[in-house]
Amino acid sequence: MSGSFTRAPRWAFEKQQSNIFSIHRSGMIQSPRGTRDFLPNDMERRRFYEGVLRQTAQRSGFREIQTPIFEEAELFILRSGPNIINELYAFKDKGDRDMALRPEMTAPAIRSFVNNMSNDPKPIKIFYFGQCFRYERPQSGRYREFFQFGAEIIGTATPQTDAEIIATALEMVKALGLKEYRARIGHIGILRKELSRAGVAADKMPEVLQKLDKKLYEEAWPLMEAAGVSRKDADSIFELTGTVGCIDVLDKVPGDESEYLRQIMAYLSAMGAGDAPEIDLGVVRGLDYYTGMVFEIEAPVLGAEKQICGGGSYTLSELFGGEKVFSTGFAVGFDRVLLALEKEGASCPMSRMDAYVIAASGDVSLKAFEIVGMLRRSGISADVDLADRKMAKAMKYASSVGSRFVVIVGSEDLKNDSVTLRDMSSGEQKIVKVSGLPAAIRDH
Amino acid sequence: MSGSFTRAPRWAFEKQQSNIFSIHRSGMIQSPRGTRDFLPNDMERRRFYEGVLRQTAQRSGFREIQTPIFEEAELFILRSGPNIINELYAFKDKGDRDMALRPEMTAPAIRSFVNNMSNDPKPIKIFYFGQCFRYERPQSGRYREFFQFGAEIIGTATPQTDAEIIATALEMVKALGLKEYRARIGHIGILRKELSRAGVAADKMPEVLQKLDKKLYEEAWPLMEAAGVSRKDADSIFELTGTVGCIDVLDKVPGDESEYLRQIMAYLSAMGAGDAPEIDLGVVRGLDYYTGMVFEIEAPVLGAEKQICGGGSYTLSELFGGEKVFSTGFAVGFDRVLLALEKEGASCPMSRMDAYVIAASGDVSLKAFEIVGMLRRSGISADVDLADRKMAKAMKYASSVGSRFVVIVGSEDLKNDSVTLRDMSSGEQKIVKVSGLPAAIRDH
Repeated sequence: MSGSFTRAPRWAFEKQQSNIFSIHRSGMIQSPRGTRDFLPNDMERRRFYEGVLRQTAQRSGFREIQTPIFEEAELFILRSGPNIINELYAFKDKGDRDMALRPEMTAPAIRSFVNNMSNDPKPIKIFYFGQCFRYERPQSGRYREFFQFGAEIIGTATPQTDAEIIATALEMVKALGLKEYRARIGHIGILRKELSRAGVAADKMPEVLQKLDKKLYEEAWPLMEAAGVSRKDADSIFELTGTVGCIDVLDKVPGDESEYLRQIMAYLSAMGAGDAPEIDLGVVRGLDYYTGMVFEIEAPVLGAEKQICGGGSYTLSELFGGEKVFSTGFAVGFDRVLLALEKEGASCPMSRMDAYVIAASGDVSLKAFEIVGMLRRSGISADVDLADRKMAKAMKYASSVGSRFVVIVGSEDLKNDSVTLRDMSSGEQKIVKVSGLPAAIRDH
Repeated sequence: MSGSFTRAPRWAFEKQQSNIFSIHRSGMIQSPRGTRDFLPNDMERRRFYEGVLRQTAQRSGFREIQTPIFEEAELFILRSGPNIINELYAFKDKGDRDMALRPEMTAPAIRSFVNNMSNDPKPIKIFYFGQCFRYERPQSGRYREFFQFGAEIIGTATPQTDAEIIATALEMVKALGLKEYRARIGHIGILRKELSRAGVAADKMPEVLQKLDKKLYEEAWPLMEAAGVSRKDADSIFELTGTVGCIDVLDKVPGDESEYLRQIMAYLSAMGAGDAPEIDLGVVRGLDYYTGMVFEIEAPVLGAEKQICGGGSYTLSELFGGEKVFSTGFAVGFDRVLLALEKEGASCPMSRMDAYVIAASGDVSLKAFEIVGMLRRSGISADVDLADRKMAKAMKYASSVGSRFVVIVGSEDLKNDSVTLRDMSSGEQKIVKVSGLPAAIRDH
């Protein structure tokens, strides 16, 4: 090595002057922990199911929006509370502003509504799909970079709105082809009312609800006791959180909230939204900003981590500097849905290349390129040997990439403006005119 | 306010104990500087053109991959040199590893090849699309979060491979419908050979090439002079970098590189890849890792920032811990392409909702939901009034969201299992049987 060759220092995040050097690394660089590379077969499957979700949403009048991958960290803290900080991929930008990779997309969607759409006719029906990031220990079906599909209806607060959002989520699950799923609907007001009646003040409520959401009764009890709740009331509240069943369970908790859930169920039933969801008075959902209906969809095939969709009605816009506007929405955990479909043995259509073109000898190489160009312009997916390979090797490649046909371009055939077309499934070969090649491939 | 209400402290990135409080912000939270929210009309246009690029790539045998939004920062420094640090959105993860939002996707694609695909049959043809991030001053057509579409052929180093990648890029530009564009092809070896012949040593080469890439002759000259280049040689090298024209300009620089470019041009011409690109001996492209052919495509309508695509042949895999493998690829600046199309007045098909269903009175509200459910199951995009609005308001909404038809559900019509169908363009109304509604809407 020349003496003027500069060995790379360990680089650092500070300004360095232009300094040309080479770094050679001993090991392989890997993708960051908890993230994934999606290879072609994965991607084809993912794009297929993404398309199913998109089309279902569009058929119900939702339209797509897209927000940035990162936002001011404060946005997520306003929505989820300060504990979210521990799960954020946070960084300071060069203007010393605290930024974070988005851990979810409801807050960005509502921020975008406040900034851009607040004067549009209501309701506004939007959906979105993309990467989210959460700094947690990677485990089955949970990744640090994961994908969410979500939808929101902004600007109306009616049983119809809640029914529409639940129906959309259920339609998606059906359209994806998931065989077994379970939807549960609740109303956060029922438990709040019972807690209030039993003596829990509004400012103590979120803490108690968070414990009840996770069915951590042992941890909920001391909080409730301190708030003056009797053991008897506590027990009946614990029982309430375990109450699941058909619409009749609402008889236990008469009131406006029950009546509201009945109306939602009536609209769902009118829409023919599949099997009626169950009523589950224990669906609380961790977050404080929910205002009424809450729901979850599970795929039992996933075992412990079985929730694939969660949502409810809420208000968030006033936290981000807008007017208070009622919204209802949900998010689907795309990775978990795909895992559930895989476990159920679902398959989706996979594309195959139509034709792989091979020049039998170097002198007809340009002709092979002419033919591949012609095929592509006819709308046929086609590829061509790029490495002047011997026939056997080129055939093996065509087979490995799964091409339906091979087109062999040989100088003898070309004298009659013809080529040999080989069907890779049957092994059959026939001689066809170059001008008839697109039709021969398409009509097969 | 109750005394127990805790006013939010300015939050910080440190562990905080669970502490329920509310934060209210005075101003609106905005999307971070240099990023954008894409609203429904934007998104529909973006998804349309993304689809055009995807289909063009797939027709040519490329398959999609997806890599994480962030990577070890070192990956990008290995590819682009230490100066890239100043443009990276970099952060340390909680394991104190230096991470960065990807500023480009070639390095991740090749990293993924090294990790996952190195034993697959060659060539490997992949493409990718997504967000990239660069910390620079936002300006027209340049954003801190921007979108790239790229394609790579990995594992062959032939004129055919280079021709195929250029043809794919040209096909994309044509398929997008861009009217005016200009493609220029060069060979980095030509300039390197001339510089070497004139006395520039290998380790001084990159610095000089970077100046020549930007046509900064005044800054290149002192470097060349210091390397012992004569003024005469320097002038003829400067002239070379300004040499653009048809294939004949290669006569000026006989040698293997010229011959190689001639072969590329012959394959391109065989494939019918539109107007032949120009030869431009001044296309250097900033980066050191290019090994041979380099090319650029411009959209003149964009003015100064007119480059929409750049690429060439290179090796990178050995920097990331793999074996040295030749690759050829390109990236398309998606945002700039869209800007160019917009400036050229291009339009793309926009979807419209088929039907908006309105209940004329509250007593038929459930029936309206039954009809919207039926329409959607027939594959018709349909929406329904969610807010029990008066007819005039609901009609105004249907018009504002651009629905083709309005379905008015009234109790009188329903006695005959009928509804009123209104064509929103013509204002025509007719009474149709509910069972005939999908056909009436579809066949219109």
